[in-house]
Amino acid sequence: MNTFVSIAPVIALIAAICGLAFAMYKFFWVKKQPEGTKEMANIASKVRKGAMAYLKRQYKTVGIFFIVMLIIICIMAACDMLTWFVPFAFLSGGFFSGLSGFIGMKIATYANSRTANGAQQGLNKGLKIAFSSGTVMGLTVVGLGLLDISVWFLILRAMLGNPDEIMAAMLTFGMGASSMALFARVGGGIFTKAADVGADLVGKVEAGIPEDDPRNPAVIADNVGDNVGDVAGMGADLYESYVGSIISTGALATAAGLGYAGIIVPMLIAAIGIIASIVGTFFVSTKEGATQKNLLGSLRRGTYIAAIISAIAAAVLIFTQLPDNTGVFWAVISGLIAGVLIGFFTEYYTSDSYKPTQKLSGSSETGSATIIIDGIALGMNSTAIPVIIVGISILVSFFAAGGSGSFAMGLYGVGISAVGMLATLGITLATDAYGPVADNAGGIAEMAGLGEEVRNRTDALDSLGNTTAATGKGFAIGSAALTALALIVSYTDKIESLGGDLQLSLTNPPVLIGLFVGAMLPFLFSAFTMQAVGRAAQKIVVEVRRQFKQIKGLMEGKADADYETCVDICTRSSLKEMIVPAALGILAPIIVGLVLGVNGVVGMLAGALVSGFAIAIMMANSGGAWDNAKKYIEAGNFGGKGSENHKAAVVGDTVGDPFKDTSGPSVNILIKLLSMVSIVFAGLIVKFNLIDLIAK
Amino acid sequence: MNTFVSIAPVIALIAAICGLAFAMYKFFWVKKQPEGTKEMANIASKVRKGAMAYLKRQYKTVGIFFIVMLIIICIMAACDMLTWFVPFAFLSGGFFSGLSGFIGMKIATYANSRTANGAQQGLNKGLKIAFSSGTVMGLTVVGLGLLDISVWFLILRAMLGNPDEIMAAMLTFGMGASSMALFARVGGGIFTKAADVGADLVGKVEAGIPEDDPRNPAVIADNVGDNVGDVAGMGADLYESYVGSIISTGALATAAGLGYAGIIVPMLIAAIGIIASIVGTFFVSTKEGATQKNLLGSLRRGTYIAAIISAIAAAVLIFTQLPDNTGVFWAVISGLIAGVLIGFFTEYYTSDSYKPTQKLSGSSETGSATIIIDGIALGMNSTAIPVIIVGISILVSFFAAGGSGSFAMGLYGVGISAVGMLATLGITLATDAYGPVADNAGGIAEMAGLGEEVRNRTDALDSLGNTTAATGKGFAIGSAALTALALIVSYTDKIESLGGDLQLSLTNPPVLIGLFVGAMLPFLFSAFTMQAVGRAAQKIVVEVRRQFKQIKGLMEGKADADYETCVDICTRSSLKEMIVPAALGILAPIIVGLVLGVNGVVGMLAGALVSGFAIAIMMANSGGAWDNAKKYIEAGNFGGKGSENHKAAVVGDTVGDPFKDTSGPSVNILIKLLSMVSIVFAGLIVKFNLIDLIAK
Repeated sequence: MNTFVSIAPVIALIAAICGLAFAMYKFFWVKKQPEGTKEMANIASKVRKGAMAYLKRQYKTVGIFFIVMLIIICIMAACDMLTWFVPFAFLSGGFFSGLSGFIGMKIATYANSRTANGAQQGLNKGLKIAFSSGTVMGLTVVGLGLLDISVWFLILRAMLGNPDEIMAAMLTFGMGASSMALFARVGGGIFTKAADVGADLVGKVEAGIPEDDPRNPAVIADNVGDNVGDVAGMGADLYESYVGSIISTGALATAAGLGYAGIIVPMLIAAIGIIASIVGTFFVSTKEGATQKNLLGSLRRGTYIAAIISAIAAAVLIFTQLPDNTGVFWAVISGLIAGVLIGFFTEYYTSDSYKPTQKLSGSSETGSATIIIDGIALGMNSTAIPVIIVGISILVSFFAAGGSGSFAMGLYGVGISAVGMLATLGITLATDAYGPVADNAGGIAEMAGLGEEVRNRTDALDSLGNTTAATGKGFAIGSAALTALALIVSYTDKIESLGGDLQLSLTNPPVLIGLFVGAMLPFLFSAFTMQAVGRAAQKIVVEVRRQFKQIKGLMEGKADADYETCVDICTRSSLKEMIVPAALGILAPIIVGLVLGVNGVVGMLAGALVSGFAIAIMMANSGGAWDNAKKYIEAGNFGGKGSENHKAAVVGDTVGDPFKDTSGPSVNILIKLLSMVSIVFAGLIVKFNLIDLIAK
Repeated sequence: MNTFVSIAPVIALIAAICGLAFAMYKFFWVKKQPEGTKEMANIASKVRKGAMAYLKRQYKTVGIFFIVMLIIICIMAACDMLTWFVPFAFLSGGFFSGLSGFIGMKIATYANSRTANGAQQGLNKGLKIAFSSGTVMGLTVVGLGLLDISVWFLILRAMLGNPDEIMAAMLTFGMGASSMALFARVGGGIFTKAADVGADLVGKVEAGIPEDDPRNPAVIADNVGDNVGDVAGMGADLYESYVGSIISTGALATAAGLGYAGIIVPMLIAAIGIIASIVGTFFVSTKEGATQKNLLGSLRRGTYIAAIISAIAAAVLIFTQLPDNTGVFWAVISGLIAGVLIGFFTEYYTSDSYKPTQKLSGSSETGSATIIIDGIALGMNSTAIPVIIVGISILVSFFAAGGSGSFAMGLYGVGISAVGMLATLGITLATDAYGPVADNAGGIAEMAGLGEEVRNRTDALDSLGNTTAATGKGFAIGSAALTALALIVSYTDKIESLGGDLQLSLTNPPVLIGLFVGAMLPFLFSAFTMQAVGRAAQKIVVEVRRQFKQIKGLMEGKADADYETCVDICTRSSLKEMIVPAALGILAPIIVGLVLGVNGVVGMLAGALVSGFAIAIMMANSGGAWDNAKKYIEAGNFGGKGSENHKAAVVGDTVGDPFKDTSGPSVNILIKLLSMVSIVFAGLIVKFNLIDLIAK
């Protein structure tokens, strides 16, 4: 181990701290901005309180799960199936994942009123505040992620001293983060869509009042939902991808015989990415009177600059640290490019600036049935290109890293491409997390009656947020696929080191059955989450109807709605409803393992990965396209707002809500969680499983 | 080769001829029945003519494809990549598959008016005619299938004399049947749903006239569609599964070292099934005043008796012919039971006698968006149990057949379970194919104004048809999965015999990328077919609107609609629209093979199998449940016909139409076709592919 390699984790730690410090600086900068009128502050405080109340109760519920899992893990450690590091690692992963979401949400709920207020001064001011809060989120996620990894790595290196053992222990870290992420995404996703669908069904459709109207009792819940679902959920999700990709690539490095040098490369690529992201944020600003295109260009400029800096620094790093495997650099590049391309095609399929969504708007002319059929078809259609991009990216990184000579080296390259895709997460997540803030700012502007000009500005920011959210989703899905892939390979390495009998041929029945089960899991999981949204929304519908009936003067604007009850109902039902889907994600690998053994598990992981990837894209893009098809009609096309076509498009949008904001993004986490759980329970499964008993 | 083994193919041939003879007898019996009034005969003749005209033009279009493929295959044979038997085998498979559909449709279009007329006399008479026409279809499919196989086997045995070579040649037979089946299913599926959706959108929704009203210009096209889609398409589909399962199991027998004895077992199980099916048909009859339950019981009785006879005879066969591998018998049983169970659960999820569909009806109370969300969730949910059933069935048949000792023997067991599932296809298809006939009979009763009592009887028959169709669909999907699985294994055997370099581990990048691509294909394919239905339906909408506007006196019933034009539009557009999806199925394995090599192809096949299985079930069950949820409301629940809830349910039903009758069943064929094409092009891919070039 040369000096550089030995101090590299410290460099990563410093970069992580830089990221966190910058996030903190931005946090206080945003908080320092004026909050606007008393009414605005009041609304914002309601949203913040609701969101915090939800999060506290969510952590309590999740806490019970963590205690149960901790006991199980401790028992397994006592039985020598795991090392005693794992319980601590499990907790730290869960804690930091939750913390990422918490901080992201905290700043988002501070930034919403301040963005609305900033938009009163001008577009640039609004953008700056909203984007700064996104930056807090982005840099918190990557900062905490790299902090967790580098500190653990330093501790384990001091205690174990052998790269193989270190990475084997670190691989188990991810499960805490994944579980936390799944709870956050599923719970938050159910909350946000139950509130949204419930508010729309009664408010917009039955009572005929506009969106974000303060008379609607579910309007605060809807705004809370944006924060707990889109912000906290997304933060936990990407935290997990980020950490997962770095750790699994490190594990692949030891399998490829690269030793410490191979382990520090992904950590340092991440470190480079953090610094580059910070630099990139300085390039995001716009002038007053900017068009949508200018705004988007400004966000893109920041992202591209960060990407270019990362690429150059990564080249230097790889050429000096892995001089015999410089091809690994192309893996980084292929990951970066794949991320950008998937993001672009997500935008192509879901933005109303392009043909597919425009055509989808036209389907409304023959009613809601045809817009549903065509929307589903659009989503299914849109799976093809991302699959091809991911396929090419795998192929390029495998062969560039040397896969034709060394199989393990090639797989290390695939892992590195995931790290490359996520390197600039600090800034890409910032452009993504800014969306819900702008959305909320619009809601506050509407509720506080800030006038049309302000609302137009927040609308411009929000509409841009839809585009960046689409890109962000494509990115999240692409990175989830590559990360899950790296995790699967790491799992097989772990099984080998445990002496398990791997027969991974596709014609081996346990592998095949595992594939069938795995491919089915995302379907079942999506069904659970969609039905959960339905049930929760139903309760909101009943409550909103009750308030409209029983609160005298509400419709006339003379009495206040009882917002808290709606928030409370959403909180209760989403926490209740998140349990079954989460249990599916955690129990499936254990049950499949106990029945079909390790080969069945690998089959299941691969099946869930490939079908989950397609379903996640389909749901995200169908949902995004319906949303924007509706907006396209509202902009005056195909009859405009209030027409029969618009009504049909609203049906599409409502169907798309759980697609794009609950089920789709949760599937992303599911495919990683399955691998993480499998890795933790590997020791158990190798020892006990039904299929080995039968075969004997 | 002992005497029994040597004459076994002749026994199979005789059984096939028995089946065909019985089908012919039933054909003429049905034709002998009186057709009813002149008006009924007139309507039936219009439907028949439209159906025949469609089929003729379809064969012409498909003919061009067959000629092109034939040239390619001949070139490959000339280059020694295939034997010279393949071109003939390809043609005979396509011809017989098409012929199955043709005869099935011919009898269905004779039986519709006769069933309506029989229903005037009583329920039993109606059932007898409709079921007899189903029997013609069922026994034609199995008769022609086994005829094709046994004749070819006899020819090849005489010419080649070596079981390995015989089966290698026979494996390539399936592609003709598969291609024909895909064209028939996709073309027919587009036709039927374009007509149905088009007729409903303008007739029911805009003009407010009832279903099957003779004033609707698309009503004949709708009835033609039932025949070309549900009858001809289904026949070609199951012909292909049937032939595929027998041939691939035979190929697995040689890999397992069972020689001729292993080859004749599946052929003779099929032969037994034909005779058992004939016996079973005699037990199908009912009394006047029978309830829906009695009717269903009567159909079930026939099916169960056939299954029991088959099981007993198969036991005798296996215990005498494979005395060292008697465990194979349990593979047959597991296939039979799996088929029945999948059918039952399909019914459970889609029939309004059970909770899921009843609850789905209730979702209509909050509008069309919620019924769509819940319907999709229902379909996704319903994938879990069939996957588990198939998984258990694979496991049982693998280990029962001896998989723990001999891998190849276990896989032979998996093949046999598919043969077991399809053994009684003669009668299960009869119970299935009877549905569209009853549906058509109802249409004719309505159009000819036969009075309420008759309509009630045909409705009872039709409603039962929906249940048996659900069961039949579950059956078709289950058998497709097992057949495709057997084909994949056969493919790998073939590659090995060609000297290809198989590295089928799930961690091998080409395998992984293949999995990704394969899992995506059913999504893309479904998108193509759904969009095709949308485009074709659009044309019908325009035409029906035109006729309502331009034909004076049409709405008053004083002038006749121009039915032919609608039939012609459906024909043209469905033939045009079927080309792209079919091309996807044929080109995908070739392109994937040329890029990713044989390992990529196997990955693709496995990915398409597991994701296609889930999608096919989801689409079939979502569609079926929506259809019956609507009927449940029409029966007076949740507000009844004409209520807002009913309107929401109609939207669900319309979305479900292409799901359950176009995309879902076509995916079934897709997963088999991909394997068949791969097998035919195996020689080419082993010699030329990009990945081998890169690796070198």
